[in-house]
Amino acid sequence: MEQIEDLRNKMDQITLELIKMLKERTDIAKQIGTIKKNMGKNITDEARENNLRSKVLTLATEINLDENLATKFLNFLLNESIKVQQTNKQTHLSIFRKAKEMELQGKKVIHMEVGEPDFMPPQIVKTALGEVVDKGFTKYGSAQGHTQLQEAIVSYTSKQYNNINNSLNINKQNVLVTPGARFSIFLAITTLLNPGDEIIIIEPAWPAYRDCALNAGIKIRTIKTNLQNKWEPNIQDIKKIINQNTKMIVLNYPNNPTGKVLPVHIQDKIVDIAKRNNLYILSDEIYTQYSKTKCKSILEYNYHKSITVQSFSKSHAMTGFRIGYTIASTQIIKKMTKLQALVLTSVSEPIQYTALQALLKSDTTNNTKIINARLDTLQKMAKDANLEFVSPDGAMYLFVKINKPDFDATEFAQKILQTHGLAIAPGSGFGEYKEFIRISACQDEKTLKEGMYILNKVLKE
Amino acid sequence: MEQIEDLRNKMDQITLELIKMLKERTDIAKQIGTIKKNMGKNITDEARENNLRSKVLTLATEINLDENLATKFLNFLLNESIKVQQTNKQTHLSIFRKAKEMELQGKKVIHMEVGEPDFMPPQIVKTALGEVVDKGFTKYGSAQGHTQLQEAIVSYTSKQYNNINNSLNINKQNVLVTPGARFSIFLAITTLLNPGDEIIIIEPAWPAYRDCALNAGIKIRTIKTNLQNKWEPNIQDIKKIINQNTKMIVLNYPNNPTGKVLPVHIQDKIVDIAKRNNLYILSDEIYTQYSKTKCKSILEYNYHKSITVQSFSKSHAMTGFRIGYTIASTQIIKKMTKLQALVLTSVSEPIQYTALQALLKSDTTNNTKIINARLDTLQKMAKDANLEFVSPDGAMYLFVKINKPDFDATEFAQKILQTHGLAIAPGSGFGEYKEFIRISACQDEKTLKEGMYILNKVLKE
Repeated sequence: MEQIEDLRNKMDQITLELIKMLKERTDIAKQIGTIKKNMGKNITDEARENNLRSKVLTLATEINLDENLATKFLNFLLNESIKVQQTNKQTHLSIFRKAKEMELQGKKVIHMEVGEPDFMPPQIVKTALGEVVDKGFTKYGSAQGHTQLQEAIVSYTSKQYNNINNSLNINKQNVLVTPGARFSIFLAITTLLNPGDEIIIIEPAWPAYRDCALNAGIKIRTIKTNLQNKWEPNIQDIKKIINQNTKMIVLNYPNNPTGKVLPVHIQDKIVDIAKRNNLYILSDEIYTQYSKTKCKSILEYNYHKSITVQSFSKSHAMTGFRIGYTIASTQIIKKMTKLQALVLTSVSEPIQYTALQALLKSDTTNNTKIINARLDTLQKMAKDANLEFVSPDGAMYLFVKINKPDFDATEFAQKILQTHGLAIAPGSGFGEYKEFIRISACQDEKTLKEGMYILNKVLKE
Repeated sequence: MEQIEDLRNKMDQITLELIKMLKERTDIAKQIGTIKKNMGKNITDEARENNLRSKVLTLATEINLDENLATKFLNFLLNESIKVQQTNKQTHLSIFRKAKEMELQGKKVIHMEVGEPDFMPPQIVKTALGEVVDKGFTKYGSAQGHTQLQEAIVSYTSKQYNNINNSLNINKQNVLVTPGARFSIFLAITTLLNPGDEIIIIEPAWPAYRDCALNAGIKIRTIKTNLQNKWEPNIQDIKKIINQNTKMIVLNYPNNPTGKVLPVHIQDKIVDIAKRNNLYILSDEIYTQYSKTKCKSILEYNYHKSITVQSFSKSHAMTGFRIGYTIASTQIIKKMTKLQALVLTSVSEPIQYTALQALLKSDTTNNTKIINARLDTLQKMAKDANLEFVSPDGAMYLFVKINKPDFDATEFAQKILQTHGLAIAPGSGFGEYKEFIRISACQDEKTLKEGMYILNKVLKE
C-alpha cells in the first residue's frame, strides 16, 4: 500500500508539472496567434504540424512511449477537432434524398444518381425471410457474425479466387459480417488508424472513405487521377506522398464512379509499395460482380495487412437489407469486431440468415448481364451526345465529362432535378471533378434513354 | 517572421518535454496497475481522482490557466491511465460468450446471465418477414428511419404517456430509428459530447454507457448506490459531482441490474438538477414494459436536452433483430442521424417493416406477466437461500448480495460456469459490486429452479 502511495504522489506531481507546461505552451500559442493575425496569416500550418508530428513520433520511439498515445496527445495539444467537418458538399446521396422528397410530393423522378439496382433481390430471399422465425434466427448472435454465414462466405470466396498457383488461406475467423460495406469501412478506418495517421485516397472516389477518415481524425492525402490517363494513378505520385505517418491506402476497383479496373501490373506495383511501407490496404471490392474483365482481388496477394470489403447490396440487389462483410487477418478482424460489439452487439440475425440463403441458393449472373447491357446502351448514347468518357471495365456507372465552359456539376445536378425531374450525381461529390457527372445504369433501358434524352436536351440549351 | 520562428521552436521543445513527461507518467500508471492487479483491486479510485482534480483546479487558478482546458487535459490523462491499467473485465456478455462456446462443444448451460427473453417474438413477426419483399421494403431508406415506423412510434408513445395534464409534444422528426438501443447510446454519447466532457453514471449500471463514453474520450463520473439505500442515488452526491465540464447524466429505470424504479420525487429532483446545470439526460427506458409500477418517462418532463432510448429487444423479444429507437429534440436527432448516415446509410428496411407490424399488431402484455411471475419465484428462492436483495420494481433481474467473506463474483461466475454449467452475471460487470451477482429471469421456472438449486449448493460448499 505504501508503495502505491509513493507512486501516486509521484504521478500527481508529474500531472501538476504537465499542467504548468501546458500553460506555457498555451501562452506561446497565443502569442504566435496574435502575430499571425496582425500579419493576416492563416492559423493552422500543415507543413509545420507534420514536422512536429514526426519529431514527436521519433521521440516516442526513442523513449519507448506508445505511438498511439503520443499522437493522440499531440492531437489534443494541436486542438484538432475529431468531429465530422461541416461541409455542405453535394453528393449522389444528397441528390438522392432530394429526389425522394420530390417523389413524396408526387413528382416523377428518373433515378440516374444512385447505385441501387432496380431489380428485385433473388427469389430465395422471400422464402428465407419467411423461414427466419422457425429456423430460430431471432436471438442475440456472435458479434463477428453467424458461423454458418461466415463459413458460406469462406467457401464462396475460395471458389471465386482459388486457382492452381495460389490458394486463399482464409477461414471463418478471417470473416466479419457487418451491416453493409459502409460500416466495414467505418470499422476499419476507426479501429486500425489513430488520430493523426494518414490515409491515401485515389480520386475520384466514393465519399464515404473521406468522411469516415475525417470522423476519426485521420489526415487525408489525395492522389488525383484523370480521364486523359484513363483514371490510372501515377505510381510516383503514390511513392512521393508516403511518409512515416501514412498507414493506409484505399483501393476501389471496379471503381465508383469511373468503372475503372486497374491493369494488373499497376495494381501489383501499388500492393508492392504498400507492403514495403507497411500500409494497410483497404480494398472495397463491392462491384466485382459487375466487372467485364476478371478482377484480381486483394485477397489473392495474401497480404496480412489487407482488408477486403464486400457487400450484398449490389451483387444481390439487397441494398436496403444492410449486409456486407470483411475479410482480413484474424488480428484485424478482432479489432474491428471489438468496436462492432461495442456499438451494435451483433448484426441482425434474420438478415444474416437471409444473406446466407441468398449466397448458397441464388444465381446472380443475370444481374451482371443486365447491367453490362445497359452500360453499353448508355455508352452509345453518351457518344452520340459528344460526352467524353473512358469506357468502364465494370461497376454500374458512366463518369462523363461535360465540355461546356464553366460547367458546375453541382449547380447543374440541382437544376436538372428541379426542372426536369432527372437525378444525376455531380462529379464534385467524388473529389474535385466539377466538370463531370456520374450516370447510373440502375434503371431499365427505356428509362435510361428518357434520362439521356433529357440530359442531352438540357446540355444544348 | 523570425519572432514566429523562435516562438515555434520553443513550442516544439515544450511539446517534446510534455511527451517525455507523459512517458514517465504512463510508466508509473503501469506500475500501479500491476500492483493493484496483484492485490485484486479495482482500477479507478474516484476519491483520489477528485483530490487530484481539485489540486489541478487550484494550480490552474494560480497560474491563470483556463479551468476548462486544465480539466479537459486532466481528463485526457486520467482516461489514458485507465486504458493502460485496464484488465480483462468480466461482464454478463463475456460470460454469455463463454457459455455459448461451451454449448457449441455440446455442454449443457443454464442461461441466467443474459437479458434475453426465452419466448418467441410476436406471431405477427413471422408474417411480416414473409411480406417484406412484396411490400417493397428492400431498397435504401432514409437515415432517420422509415416514415411509417416513425409515425407508429409517435402514436404508440403518445398513447402510453399522454394524460390530461401533460401531452407529449413529439412528431416523427423527433424519432430516430436505430439498430438497437446500444447504437442509440453510442450515437448520443459520441455526437453530443466532446472528449474531456464528463458524464455521470449511476452505478450499478449496464456497462455499455461506460464503454461508449470511454470510446469517445468522455470522462466518467460515478454515483454509487447501494443495497442499504435501496439503490437510490443521494441527491447531494449528484450536486457535488457536477462541475463545468459535466455535460450528461445517464438514467436507466427500471434499472439493469437492480430492477429499481426511482420514486418520482427523487427522479424529479434529478431532472431539476440536470435542467439547472444544462445537462443532457440520456434515459435508457428499454425495461419500461417490464415494470410492476407505472414508470414516469423522461419524455413527460418535456425537457429539450433529454434523449429517450427504447428498444424492441426486451419488450417484443426481438433481441437478434437489432432494432430500437430514440426520441429527442429535432436538433439532437439531426446530430445523431448525421453519424448514423455516415456509418450505416440506413437501418435495415426489412427489420423496420417487421418492427412496424409488431408495434401495430401485437400484444405483449403476456410477456410482462410471465417475467413478473418468474421474478416472484426467483425472489422466493433467493430468500430461502438467505441471499440479500431489494425486491425489484421492474426489469428482468434479481441483483443479489452473496454474504460470504472475500466473495469475488467474477471468479465465482467463471467457476460455476465451468464446473456446473450455470451462467450468471458477476456484479463487477456493473461497477464495483464484486459481492453481487445478477440473476436473469429469462428462462422458464423449471430452469430457474434448477439454476437456483445449483447456485445454492455451490454457495454452501
